[in-house]
Amino acid sequence: MKLPPGFSVYRQVLGADALMLSELASISEPKEIIFLAPGNPAPDLLPAEMIRTIFTDSLLSARQSALGYGPVEGLHSLRRAIAASMRKRGVPVDVQHILVLSGSTQGVGLIGRFLLNPGDEVVVEVPTYLGAIQMFRALNVRVMGVPTDKDGIRVDLLESILARHRPRLIYTIPTFQNPTGTVMSQDRRRRLLLLAKRYQTPILEDDPYGEIYFEDKQPTPLKALDSSGQVLYLSTYSKILAPGLRVAWLAAPEPMIERLSLHKQVFDLNTNALGQWAVSEILRRNLLDDHLKMLRQQYRQKRDLMLQAIATHWPEEVRVNHPGGGFHLWCRLPGDMRSRTLLREAANEQVAFVIGEPFHVDGGGQQNFRLSFAYPETDHIEEGVRRIGNAMKRLLARRSSREDLHKQHVEHLPMV
Amino acid sequence: MKLPPGFSVYRQVLGADALMLSELASISEPKEIIFLAPGNPAPDLLPAEMIRTIFTDSLLSARQSALGYGPVEGLHSLRRAIAASMRKRGVPVDVQHILVLSGSTQGVGLIGRFLLNPGDEVVVEVPTYLGAIQMFRALNVRVMGVPTDKDGIRVDLLESILARHRPRLIYTIPTFQNPTGTVMSQDRRRRLLLLAKRYQTPILEDDPYGEIYFEDKQPTPLKALDSSGQVLYLSTYSKILAPGLRVAWLAAPEPMIERLSLHKQVFDLNTNALGQWAVSEILRRNLLDDHLKMLRQQYRQKRDLMLQAIATHWPEEVRVNHPGGGFHLWCRLPGDMRSRTLLREAANEQVAFVIGEPFHVDGGGQQNFRLSFAYPETDHIEEGVRRIGNAMKRLLARRSSREDLHKQHVEHLPMV
Repeated sequence: MKLPPGFSVYRQVLGADALMLSELASISEPKEIIFLAPGNPAPDLLPAEMIRTIFTDSLLSARQSALGYGPVEGLHSLRRAIAASMRKRGVPVDVQHILVLSGSTQGVGLIGRFLLNPGDEVVVEVPTYLGAIQMFRALNVRVMGVPTDKDGIRVDLLESILARHRPRLIYTIPTFQNPTGTVMSQDRRRRLLLLAKRYQTPILEDDPYGEIYFEDKQPTPLKALDSSGQVLYLSTYSKILAPGLRVAWLAAPEPMIERLSLHKQVFDLNTNALGQWAVSEILRRNLLDDHLKMLRQQYRQKRDLMLQAIATHWPEEVRVNHPGGGFHLWCRLPGDMRSRTLLREAANEQVAFVIGEPFHVDGGGQQNFRLSFAYPETDHIEEGVRRIGNAMKRLLARRSSREDLHKQHVEHLPMV
Repeated sequence: MKLPPGFSVYRQVLGADALMLSELASISEPKEIIFLAPGNPAPDLLPAEMIRTIFTDSLLSARQSALGYGPVEGLHSLRRAIAASMRKRGVPVDVQHILVLSGSTQGVGLIGRFLLNPGDEVVVEVPTYLGAIQMFRALNVRVMGVPTDKDGIRVDLLESILARHRPRLIYTIPTFQNPTGTVMSQDRRRRLLLLAKRYQTPILEDDPYGEIYFEDKQPTPLKALDSSGQVLYLSTYSKILAPGLRVAWLAAPEPMIERLSLHKQVFDLNTNALGQWAVSEILRRNLLDDHLKMLRQQYRQKRDLMLQAIATHWPEEVRVNHPGGGFHLWCRLPGDMRSRTLLREAANEQVAFVIGEPFHVDGGGQQNFRLSFAYPETDHIEEGVRRIGNAMKRLLARRSSREDLHKQHVEHLPMV
């Protein structure tokens, strides 16, 4: 059995545990492994029919724009369409504010290289997206964590860090945060922007999940409130269309786009034109809106299915968020139970998830773990949750038998 | 009139001259500008029909491999097919020796970051591919040039550099070198490998044009002669299929592939699956061989057309190579005529090429320039060459009128 594509991103951060998972994957399939780990879209929701139609209809008339070298800033038609979609979400940008990227990971790297020197400090949320942590560490910058709560980043704690350390960048995922699923409150957003302005610290807003919302009202990007050009906005078509397109974008002030373009050119010349052209055609034909409606409905159903399965199969003491969007559930184990121990136990049940530690820059997260409801097949969701529940129950049983043993031991101590 | 896509790569290195070209491009089209500058494939030879058929036939059954996240090393089927194609060219590699890249520029960057620290020294040919020079400079390494002649890099001069400076990498384009079109002789190849082995210096062989040969015999990669694992081999589908696919590859020893994969993962997660899958399907269906035959024939015709036009329209004193493959002619102006001056004069004729200086790390190249016979439409080749010839003749005429003036001036001097 093969590890699912995209799983390799966890290998490095999980180290030995991931190795164990690979070994597990080589077991001769007594039952199928269920992967609740990847932050990937559901394979069956990838828009293959849509993209096939576009290639069949239009590739011949788009030979050079789809197959040639493109401009380093991205296809003009795509940048224009992206700017229009952002204006609909309240962000007043135009084509010159958009830089097309080969995935948003590239954006974090470009901005990191551009704004930060080795030894500089960058603020991230605790917990946050592990890919961003990896990237900042690869750039040899100091990563400082600020705790979050149900309303997002703790701006009260942020201020003293800004005052004392003068970090060069704040990285935040305000909407359906990865891994917590939190939406930063309006009040926090305003206070974050005020602080960033006061201390002249740029904010990098990463928004891969903003279009995957399950309630009536879509959260507005932080950048829509940004009157001082303090926010650099990053998003991607990987979650809402297909990761294989490798098309993401940055919205930023024009001089920054110009300078980052020169930088990007040296590193990858340009983003693949094929994917850019496909996205551009999807937007031109107005196919994205219906696709998004379908995705929201499907992913909401999968979220509900997973939450129901958890209510049925897990001990009550496990705490789980109820995200209003995105791809993930964020869970916390009770007592002193560690997610790393649970992952080992779950491996025996042939089910995998991501433990909390790699999302934490402060050494925390030992009791947390992340489940993806987006990636697994619908039929696997309940079974995966049930298997994790089995693992939990075994760990709890062992703990109480240890406690019993301890109690017995105490009872049998001679009274002195 | 728009600059052709991919032209932006020249903007940075050409500076003011490129700016002038952009201004020229904004002139209200008295006649069409002919671009003999880009190293792009001919737009009308991009395999749009082939790729359309593949998407129409097979995308639905390849949803996850074409549209999902792929493994960071690249699609397994593609790596296997690439390894097979390299074995046909005499390089004994297998799937584990292949890393798929988002363009070969990325490969130069990854290897540069992996093997070099800021301040380290790297050897390049003089002249060489300007994108590689840019990349090495962006990595803050010292770039040392070794002259070339009709047989390739001057290994006699290389040895003393290896002995004195102990550079960490040798970058070479042994086959249809960019910009000179030279094929390194067998003797030089052997001596280069011996030197690299003796001084334990890795060689990065960049081979974008090896499949575009016009004579009966295809040159063998340097790596085919490499018995000690000294050569890292880089090639791309940008020239032989389409730049828009953004698919290139590295062939290297397995431990290096593993370590570079981790590195690549941090920087762009993975290469676009859509392009990888398309290439993989083209190879699986055995469509590349016929496509290459067609390209060789078409590009040979275009080369011949350009050489004929040069014989017709240029002063005899201009020296031009006669390349056995690749995309470019490399030209040298007579006397003290500078290619930068010619470029300015040519701008009045609405024709553009690349001057020699950005290809030189030693400050040379003022009298050289590069013409692409691959990119322009067949109908534009003679006209473009004719326009450059006009510009040359005007410059020569001015020079001789200056000389006449000088002579007259001398004649009228009082005899003292």
